[in-house]
Amino acid sequence: MKKIIILGATGSIGRNCLEVIRANPRRFKLVGISANRNIGRCEKILGQFRPKIAAISHPASFMRLKKAAHGRTSILAGEEGILEMIESLEADTIVSAIAGSAGLLPTLASIKKGVRIAIANKEPMVMAGRLITAAAKKSGASLLPIDSEHSAVFQCLNGEPEKRLKKIILTASGGPFLNTAYKKLEKVTPAMALKHPRWKMGAKITIDSATLMNKGLEVIEARWLFGVPPEKIQVLVHPQSIVHSMVEFEDTSVMAQMGMPDMKVPIAYALSYPDRLPAPCGSLDLLKEKKLEFFPPDTKRFPCLSLAYEALAKGGTMPAVLNAANEAAVEAFLEGRAGFLDIPKLVEQAISKASLRSDNKLENIIKAHKEGGELVRTLL
Amino acid sequence: MKKIIILGATGSIGRNCLEVIRANPRRFKLVGISANRNIGRCEKILGQFRPKIAAISHPASFMRLKKAAHGRTSILAGEEGILEMIESLEADTIVSAIAGSAGLLPTLASIKKGVRIAIANKEPMVMAGRLITAAAKKSGASLLPIDSEHSAVFQCLNGEPEKRLKKIILTASGGPFLNTAYKKLEKVTPAMALKHPRWKMGAKITIDSATLMNKGLEVIEARWLFGVPPEKIQVLVHPQSIVHSMVEFEDTSVMAQMGMPDMKVPIAYALSYPDRLPAPCGSLDLLKEKKLEFFPPDTKRFPCLSLAYEALAKGGTMPAVLNAANEAAVEAFLEGRAGFLDIPKLVEQAISKASLRSDNKLENIIKAHKEGGELVRTLL
Repeated sequence: MKKIIILGATGSIGRNCLEVIRANPRRFKLVGISANRNIGRCEKILGQFRPKIAAISHPASFMRLKKAAHGRTSILAGEEGILEMIESLEADTIVSAIAGSAGLLPTLASIKKGVRIAIANKEPMVMAGRLITAAAKKSGASLLPIDSEHSAVFQCLNGEPEKRLKKIILTASGGPFLNTAYKKLEKVTPAMALKHPRWKMGAKITIDSATLMNKGLEVIEARWLFGVPPEKIQVLVHPQSIVHSMVEFEDTSVMAQMGMPDMKVPIAYALSYPDRLPAPCGSLDLLKEKKLEFFPPDTKRFPCLSLAYEALAKGGTMPAVLNAANEAAVEAFLEGRAGFLDIPKLVEQAISKASLRSDNKLENIIKAHKEGGELVRTLL
Repeated sequence: MKKIIILGATGSIGRNCLEVIRANPRRFKLVGISANRNIGRCEKILGQFRPKIAAISHPASFMRLKKAAHGRTSILAGEEGILEMIESLEADTIVSAIAGSAGLLPTLASIKKGVRIAIANKEPMVMAGRLITAAAKKSGASLLPIDSEHSAVFQCLNGEPEKRLKKIILTASGGPFLNTAYKKLEKVTPAMALKHPRWKMGAKITIDSATLMNKGLEVIEARWLFGVPPEKIQVLVHPQSIVHSMVEFEDTSVMAQMGMPDMKVPIAYALSYPDRLPAPCGSLDLLKEKKLEFFPPDTKRFPCLSLAYEALAKGGTMPAVLNAANEAAVEAFLEGRAGFLDIPKLVEQAISKASLRSDNKLENIIKAHKEGGELVRTLL
């Protein structure tokens, strides 16, 4: 019986994760959750899973949740509450699924425990990949990806000699505007961008998919998760989203992982590895798909992908600036304060103006993150 | 330094295997070869690799080869010579690449040595899969496939829990007549059938690819190599021959191995496993391929695939009958004594008329093999 903590239990990944735990009651026991503001869903989780501790970021909701817990679950509040839960609970696996940069400190605290960390939130890896992988090495924590692309790469690499890895090929659906002319991208509204053709996800990541920034962030994540230099990470547009990603070895063999677009598959894999759990969804039917296509990404219409490579090449704290600038730009787009094509422009200006700190201290990363967001807000 | 014996060194697989050894002189040393009649090529191999022993099936060539060896290579002759070489030579890996059913006894003799057997010749596995896998279990020999499809499956299974295997998906190029109407198949000549769209191979296997019998034999081979019941082995037509085969796991994840159609890749893999050797050919370019397609096989136009499943379902010695009947029918087709559409008809009649022996003694397999060939020759 594996004890699981879910950080970000009320989000899209958190909910899928709860479904996997519910479907495998003899394997997994939910011992702790964190959530931001969705108290209604929190109450349901407490009723269904009775975790030992629940930590809620939003302090004002503390009393309501405490009441709902009927003394069976300890309730903690605020960022400190989340860190306290991580520190005090015994767990085998911590699912890191807090959206955005807010996941950084909880992820670092989780890694200190030296257990398995299932990483669903790519922002901490983007901001502080070097720091996180070094901390994991020190504590003995194992980092297992939940992102479908990185889970695919992990499955392709499984047991193979690292020195024989030639290339990681991340696939991208291309998002809802794969075939939209540049001129028309100007008029893209949040409602249009929130319609992803293949995956149901949260708002931030769906917009990132539409700009290809999501793929850029994944390139940075892959660079740290798999210890591979950026020039060995390639992105291919694959509109069918069936091949979740690939790996090429020195002998030219390419291993690919394919499947249905259901996040429960990589979640179940990260929780059960090296075993695999019975199907959480229907089988892939290649006859239904008929054809799988691959195209080069168009970085003229979608410059965010190039910007991510650029930030990675600059190194140091620049990926943290990129990430924060993107968060701020996407927020502005969702609130109608910026156009779709402004997102890459704002991010580009932020990374050209931001100061570069080459050491990887946490305080510098946090400074860079603040600077990236502020630069975009000033530009707006 | 791994010592290698190649059984069938002058054939298509043997020659590719020699290229891999030549490209990796610090890893591999050729210590023994067998050949059938191609003395010219044998002489070249002796000059270039100086193996300890060469065994030649064709006794009349013995003296010529002995002269060419200049006393540096011992020459043996006949089927007994091949078996004597296998028994007396110390080796790490024996490549079993003798074409057709002639490979059965040498393969069994190789397995007795308890070393790695790289299996390029599927006929022995088809005829005597249960016997061979039992012998390998007893001696501790490891069976590594060289066939590109089985190598792909082996790579996909690598390290995964066997109980989680849901399905093996073998891909088939569909051969040169993938889109040829049934009526037109009547007029197919050997020259037409020998033009394979993707792979350069020997004559027998190229015809088998055109009838889809090759895929049927591969289903039987996979059944034994991977210990999987026939209902878990599916065949998909994939005209691009980029995905060499796939495996589906219980969690619906599908792992696929892709690559260029170059036999040196699976050969190098079988010799170097668990390592991988640097590229023996150019990288796969998915952008060049543009699309990968998958279709169900048409067993009405290509009944040989169904006949293989049927022989496997009947069990016992029936796959040996199927294999021998097919060898005889293909020979007749290549010699102009039978039409292309006669091949499945002859095989079907042979497996309906042959007696079924359910035990797996070698003598019964050899009897069944003789019966299968004779039935076809009588029908002709």
